[in-house]
Amino acid sequence: MQHPANGQPPQYPTSLGTSDADTITLLGHDLAGELIGRTGFGELALWLVTQRRPEPGEVRVFEAVLVALADHGFTPTALATRLTYLSAPDSVQGALAAGLLGGGSRFLGVTEDCGAFLHEALTAHEGRLPGDTDDAGWDRLALETVRAARAERRLVPGLGHPVHKIRDPRTPVLLAIAEENGHKGPHLRLFEAVGRVHPQVLGRALPLNGAGVCGAALADLGLPIGLLRGFALLARTAGLLGHLAEEQRAPLGMDVYLSVDRNARYVAPPGD
Amino acid sequence: MQHPANGQPPQYPTSLGTSDADTITLLGHDLAGELIGRTGFGELALWLVTQRRPEPGEVRVFEAVLVALADHGFTPTALATRLTYLSAPDSVQGALAAGLLGGGSRFLGVTEDCGAFLHEALTAHEGRLPGDTDDAGWDRLALETVRAARAERRLVPGLGHPVHKIRDPRTPVLLAIAEENGHKGPHLRLFEAVGRVHPQVLGRALPLNGAGVCGAALADLGLPIGLLRGFALLARTAGLLGHLAEEQRAPLGMDVYLSVDRNARYVAPPGD
Amino acid sequence: MQHPANGQPPQYPTSLGTSDADTITLLGHDLAGELIGRTGFGELALWLVTQRRPEPGEVRVFEAVLVALADHGFTPTALATRLTYLSAPDSVQGALAAGLLGGGSRFLGVTEDCGAFLHEALTAHEGRLPGDTDDAGWDRLALETVRAARAERRLVPGLGHPVHKIRDPRTPVLLAIAEENGHKGPHLRLFEAVGRVHPQVLGRALPLNGAGVCGAALADLGLPIGLLRGFALLARTAGLLGHLAEEQRAPLGMDVYLSVDRNARYVAPPGD
Amino acid sequence: MQHPANGQPPQYPTSLGTSDADTITLLGHDLAGELIGRTGFGELALWLVTQRRPEPGEVRVFEAVLVALADHGFTPTALATRLTYLSAPDSVQGALAAGLLGGGSRFLGVTEDCGAFLHEALTAHEGRLPGDTDDAGWDRLALETVRAARAERRLVPGLGHPVHKIRDPRTPVLLAIAEENGHKGPHLRLFEAVGRVHPQVLGRALPLNGAGVCGAALADLGLPIGLLRGFALLARTAGLLGHLAEEQRAPLGMDVYLSVDRNARYVAPPGD
Repeated sequence: MQHPANGQPPQYPTSLGTSDADTITLLGHDLAGELIGRTGFGELALWLVTQRRPEPGEVRVFEAVLVALADHGFTPTALATRLTYLSAPDSVQGALAAGLLGGGSRFLGVTEDCGAFLHEALTAHEGRLPGDTDDAGWDRLALETVRAARAERRLVPGLGHPVHKIRDPRTPVLLAIAEENGHKGPHLRLFEAVGRVHPQVLGRALPLNGAGVCGAALADLGLPIGLLRGFALLARTAGLLGHLAEEQRAPLGMDVYLSVDRNARYVAPPGD
Repeated sequence: MQHPANGQPPQYPTSLGTSDADTITLLGHDLAGELIGRTGFGELALWLVTQRRPEPGEVRVFEAVLVALADHGFTPTALATRLTYLSAPDSVQGALAAGLLGGGSRFLGVTEDCGAFLHEALTAHEGRLPGDTDDAGWDRLALETVRAARAERRLVPGLGHPVHKIRDPRTPVLLAIAEENGHKGPHLRLFEAVGRVHPQVLGRALPLNGAGVCGAALADLGLPIGLLRGFALLARTAGLLGHLAEEQRAPLGMDVYLSVDRNARYVAPPGD
Repeated sequence: MQHPANGQPPQYPTSLGTSDADTITLLGHDLAGELIGRTGFGELALWLVTQRRPEPGEVRVFEAVLVALADHGFTPTALATRLTYLSAPDSVQGALAAGLLGGGSRFLGVTEDCGAFLHEALTAHEGRLPGDTDDAGWDRLALETVRAARAERRLVPGLGHPVHKIRDPRTPVLLAIAEENGHKGPHLRLFEAVGRVHPQVLGRALPLNGAGVCGAALADLGLPIGLLRGFALLARTAGLLGHLAEEQRAPLGMDVYLSVDRNARYVAPPGD
Repeated sequence: MQHPANGQPPQYPTSLGTSDADTITLLGHDLAGELIGRTGFGELALWLVTQRRPEPGEVRVFEAVLVALADHGFTPTALATRLTYLSAPDSVQGALAAGLLGGGSRFLGVTEDCGAFLHEALTAHEGRLPGDTDDAGWDRLALETVRAARAERRLVPGLGHPVHKIRDPRTPVLLAIAEENGHKGPHLRLFEAVGRVHPQVLGRALPLNGAGVCGAALADLGLPIGLLRGFALLARTAGLLGHLAEEQRAPLGMDVYLSVDRNARYVAPPGD
């Protein structure tokens, strides 16, 4: 904003949408004449965030990540959406928002945490990073990074999964897609190396999980680290719409509610 | 849910995501082997809701609609997201949810209202609808529908726009895309006819607005009428991520806040 | 807002909070010197909405209603809050908001619906309402109102309860408190009469439920009908804080989640 | 939850609300017979969280804190609520939730941050805390705490205020109320001492702000540190209802929106 000296109202600069009586402009392009029908939705989402038109390989990696993150069945977020819809069917937006509010540190946060963890390590070694094919160099950096995390008693995000204990099926597929499209950058290389070296430090082998590889892939696309969680939320919005549609056709929110309420058991408060 | 007679826990059927130690299944397909990298994000979103794999023409219309609805600049929803991020930068999910909560009856609701309005008219005339090329037939149906709405003092959703008073530039483009892809169905045909005949009833010519044509197009794709608002919300999620990214780079939420707070003027309560 | 002719920024009038370097003013009173420690929280909440200082009897009725609505155990809203906290423990505000989003038409909406239903009937008979002690007069009005609802196939809000099938224990207590404090007004009188006469129309006796009597009581306090749901939400905020505190001490969100996820059963999509 | 060995559904223990056909029990008491009309709303809120019936002095301090935090005029949270209501007037719950989502680290978070900061210092010195009247002892502890914070480049929460630069009028009033009611405990004593000694370390005198003293007072009531933000949210719920009521009577959300939208200025994206 610029506060003009003369007391006029402030001006609000933006590079996103503006419109006048005849045209709607988005990102500097004519929405109707240049974007609708010519730009995919994933492409536009990426473009809106980076404010730079993505090239097709970036879009392919980005959409692959969104597909990977869209739905995992009866997660807490899906249940929150279904229970909220049960209780307030008048507000689809509220049911959707309730589900997205679970996209925090625990169930959806790994994507952002993993991207941020890798980014921090890369930033600390800026100018001294291994070359693309120098696996040994990436392994040394990964070893140092995992050791430092362990010394600070921090978890290494992206390692391990409650269900996929040996191998997360999404991980090799996403790595291959990034490679094919020329977007396997330093975050993914370091993440792969973490996958190779961490047993030396942690004493056991954990799989690189899908949420973590998604975070690394998004970071390699140059997306803002402080917004990586947001892409998991965009993906999950599609999944939650799927849950709402299924709930409309064959509701089970009431059954979830009753399965808890009917098995409630009163216990005396600790303070009484 | 099935409540088994033997007191066992209930079963929860779903056609969305399930997983076991080695595989993740979504919509009956192997997520890693069949979907990631082979399915676009818009395609998956459509599939998640209909639980039927869309064909390419449907995806093109669907993505065109999402692109049309993604962002309109400093809307109330975008401002709510930016102000919430200002106040709680610790929670990207909260800022996003706050924006989506504005996707209700007024600013984003036209899409759903228009789809529902047209759907109701079509359902009432089921079995007696005009043929695809029978413009005169659609005009008669539209005339009857607009007259009925006026008689009940209901607004015709999708007519008029506060900014695009003569013509909404999105409307002809979306109609052409639906036609090209073979998905200009009865909702869009009736909507077009409403555009032709309403001046006879209302006494003035209003443009068919973009949100309305989006609702008609989504309804023609067979999407659940009670969830049309949800697709506007999916599209807007991408737009709100754009606003959050811009707010992170060049914040203006504080300026919006101060422009109101500094111009607050106390007035005595009416009840005192 | 006033848009000054000279292009100056708009002014925003309010009777709520304003402040300068030395004082904070709320509702025209010095917050620190006149309100903190001298005004109860329920009193202030009532005052903030009506912008008229309530008298003690009003506060007693209002707080009785809030106490009645604060918690009902493992409701869908409480479950949404607990599941969201499980998934995003970094955001207490998100968990609370997720719970409140269930405060819609179905589980919390009866309060508002009942107040609105009674208000509509009273408004239609304005100037011709029975006297306070004219029970027969109220019965006639109630009969007419219930008959009209039945003729339009509308439900009478506030009648019946899924658990308290004979008698809701809150109803007589709340009626007595309103009476004792001189605030049993036309909404409560009409509601009582609905309780007496509805079996004549509906053919069976249903209890007046607690949510309904709360709506009638709030309407008799002169609160805005279009905001009655908001008071149920204020009450429920306290209940949800109780659930969050209990979840922090003895979590059960994970168990709710697993009880669903482990009993998921894949069924083929209808469209495949 | 107990997972019974025999495959029966789990049991969910709670000390909050339960009900059967004839009674509703809350916190082990009969809601209708013992709580409604006999328990204030603030008292119940405190009780729901601690699960221990508060004594009157605790309730007085608690309600004083809620009154202090209820509203500060056109905050970002109030604006988010008003803009969401403008955009989605069909959902009061959504407008309220949108406002609460701003109750995060920046605008409402000081209450929790301050309570947590003091709590951490007290816990680190457990068993070695000064006596109630040993001001010099509290000053030594405060000096050590502020020095430690400065050494780690952490801010001392509760110090300073953008508007009340010299003195926050709420602070002395809240301290006096806690003292009068016998609840000026170690958190408030340490906070007062921080107010006395910090200029020695920071080189300038800052006021103890109202949000901070509220956090210290809530911590002295024994409330869970990880939930302090929740009480600010409860207080703010009342304030936001006030804003919604005012917005219903004299809307200004549209003016806020237009004041931004009309002053939008397109700038080329950095990436183009």
